[in-house]
Amino acid sequence: MTKKKEQSTMRIGLLGLGTVGTGVVKLLRENSDIINMKTGLNLEIAKVLVRDAKRPRPGVPEDLPITDDVREILADPSIKIVVEVMGGVEPARAYMIDALKAGKTVVTANKDVVSQYGKDLYAAGDVGDAELYFEASVGGGIPVIRPLKESMSANRMQKVMGIVNGTTNYILTQMSQFGRPYEEALREAQALGFAEADPTNDVQGYDAGRKLAILASIAFMSRVTPDQVFTEGITRVTPKDIEYGRRFGWTIKLLAIGKEVDGQIEARVHPAFVPSSHPLASVHGSLNAIFTEGDPVGETMFLGRGAGAGPTASAVVGDLISAALSKRTPGRRAGDACTCLFEKKVVDMGQVSAKYYLRLTSEDKPGVLAHITMAFGAEGVSIAQMVQGTGGDVATDDGKGELVLVTHTVKEAQMQRVVKRLNGIPEVLSVDNVIRVEA
Amino acid sequence: MTKKKEQSTMRIGLLGLGTVGTGVVKLLRENSDIINMKTGLNLEIAKVLVRDAKRPRPGVPEDLPITDDVREILADPSIKIVVEVMGGVEPARAYMIDALKAGKTVVTANKDVVSQYGKDLYAAGDVGDAELYFEASVGGGIPVIRPLKESMSANRMQKVMGIVNGTTNYILTQMSQFGRPYEEALREAQALGFAEADPTNDVQGYDAGRKLAILASIAFMSRVTPDQVFTEGITRVTPKDIEYGRRFGWTIKLLAIGKEVDGQIEARVHPAFVPSSHPLASVHGSLNAIFTEGDPVGETMFLGRGAGAGPTASAVVGDLISAALSKRTPGRRAGDACTCLFEKKVVDMGQVSAKYYLRLTSEDKPGVLAHITMAFGAEGVSIAQMVQGTGGDVATDDGKGELVLVTHTVKEAQMQRVVKRLNGIPEVLSVDNVIRVEA
Repeated sequence: MTKKKEQSTMRIGLLGLGTVGTGVVKLLRENSDIINMKTGLNLEIAKVLVRDAKRPRPGVPEDLPITDDVREILADPSIKIVVEVMGGVEPARAYMIDALKAGKTVVTANKDVVSQYGKDLYAAGDVGDAELYFEASVGGGIPVIRPLKESMSANRMQKVMGIVNGTTNYILTQMSQFGRPYEEALREAQALGFAEADPTNDVQGYDAGRKLAILASIAFMSRVTPDQVFTEGITRVTPKDIEYGRRFGWTIKLLAIGKEVDGQIEARVHPAFVPSSHPLASVHGSLNAIFTEGDPVGETMFLGRGAGAGPTASAVVGDLISAALSKRTPGRRAGDACTCLFEKKVVDMGQVSAKYYLRLTSEDKPGVLAHITMAFGAEGVSIAQMVQGTGGDVATDDGKGELVLVTHTVKEAQMQRVVKRLNGIPEVLSVDNVIRVEA
Repeated sequence: MTKKKEQSTMRIGLLGLGTVGTGVVKLLRENSDIINMKTGLNLEIAKVLVRDAKRPRPGVPEDLPITDDVREILADPSIKIVVEVMGGVEPARAYMIDALKAGKTVVTANKDVVSQYGKDLYAAGDVGDAELYFEASVGGGIPVIRPLKESMSANRMQKVMGIVNGTTNYILTQMSQFGRPYEEALREAQALGFAEADPTNDVQGYDAGRKLAILASIAFMSRVTPDQVFTEGITRVTPKDIEYGRRFGWTIKLLAIGKEVDGQIEARVHPAFVPSSHPLASVHGSLNAIFTEGDPVGETMFLGRGAGAGPTASAVVGDLISAALSKRTPGRRAGDACTCLFEKKVVDMGQVSAKYYLRLTSEDKPGVLAHITMAFGAEGVSIAQMVQGTGGDVATDDGKGELVLVTHTVKEAQMQRVVKRLNGIPEVLSVDNVIRVEA
């Protein structure tokens, strides 16, 4: 047996007692024995901030010290670590800034605040000589922030590409496996509690965009904020597109893609086809996964539950343990310092390169194909594959032809000009969808 | 921009200048700028131990200070960290023990020493108040040791199941994709440098067994040594078994499986069928992956390159950076302490539960099937599925029948008794293979 660990108590202030907060309380109680044995730490929840301290809370331990006055946490010098699991921007941002300035370590699951105000949080930490931990802000229980910041810190990262929104992955998986249209899959996800009543944040890619901003900032050592991330949602994806993709050997995913190319950063969230052999292609349902490429580590992927009380509490308490161990000794834990040391340009979406899948409906007349292919040629876009949708199991309406074209790698701006040209061809009835193809 | 980091130089002793050692030297030189910017550290290779200092080393920087006397490293108080990448047990073990006792941090990629002598290494670290890092000992560049020890440290782990040997995964992938027999796939792997001239260590599962010992020790907080790991190699796997497995929806892998069941540990390496929808099933070629289950994090998987100079150097230097940052401040980095705090029993293989695939050849006579199924029934083993191999694309010899049976979950000992009974049935010509099925 190893030496008995020196015992010490660390007092924690918990901001928020929703799903994640309750999960943190539960985990700290249930696994206090192993946490204590491993670390010699007794992590004591000194105070929990809630909106209404008088509301009855069934299922919450009665001896949990609850308050609705944040000063009882922020002004208490015996509280060394603040765990923020309230969600939303305000007042969470303000409380974290105050805590850091007061020298309290902050552990947070708040992707909104970290992605938009990461710079301010680190600045406040510099004022108070305090640490900031946010593993739970991306990918729920999946260790990814710390592996990027520490285990892989010697690498030059070239790519970070993830499925970081479980709601949309669930919807796309349902659409892919059962041929369901988007609206139906969404309603089912809502009925099962995987999607919110107002699903905008998830289905339009905003949630994934904030997580990508955090991942890209760390991977490329340069701050990327959510407003710099191009986002396109999944609402226009159809079972028909998914079926065509399958014929090409592809699977559709809502991808959050960060790349560094020639010292500049690409940051974009959109539906994308990936080869079905790609590790991300088999990430189904509400699972999340983050795929990275770096030199010299090569490709890695981290997979797991991206949301839910248990997985998120695992990440929060993992951070909390590190935070508490660090707090026991003087100084800050250097490995957790801000690494946004460069100011790399985030390129305009028009300058991003990809392959494109384009589906259109045209009149079924001779000569139409020539007009269509000329539109591509005029913009210097070469066509890699082409499928006529007539016949086979992809239905088309009478008198109309459906055509799917796949390009070689071109710039987004070129492709946008192709679409404009196509819309100007009288026989082209509609450009039905354009989906990027990622390798 | 963040504050300029305080600069300091950390002198490193490197033991070994083979593939990995050369990779470490290369990485420290090529990425010194980002390492320095992130950490304020100048990681200086003060001395490199080689067997013969006079041998010419093309490709190695000329200014690299080489020695063949280990005392120039171990007795130099200015060298704070020793990186061991020699491989093999001796003298690597002795050097690491000496370094730790002398208060030097040790970073190692040595699965043999860590798995067999982890206890001694930690004891030496206690003597010298020195830290031990070994991320590179399992899974090459894949962050897995640190995620288990830190990010997921609040969890009770129930399972750690991995593809941790690239050679065998390459061979099994070739056998699965192209129907090649084992010997042919092995020869190809040898020709491509994926397998050694004497492949025993890989194909018999010994290499995977050592890695599993390390993973299980950390996951279950109780020391597991290689001699406690049951190992069975891949040499008896045939394309025929793989084809049958495919019909059941399975993929074959050499799995390293650690489980905690009722406070006891299972530790075993053997070929196993996994459902083709399992995340491990799509880990092809020389990739490695480690799949874990814990409470409350649920399932996670870590995937990447499990070997090679670049990925291994990534893990070694990632550890080295953490070690150097820790060394700059007083005390040890508590999160990296030994966590083998329990003494859990490793169960005998006979007591392990699994589902079993069994393939046999019998005379093609009436009544044989009754004798066979009775042998299962007599041991309380119930049959979940049965396939007659006659007809279809699985060839059988004239006058003989091939039969594949899949059991429900039973104990290994029961299954061994079934095999014994089957071998006693005159019409059963041979029990050709028994392969465990893991969910």
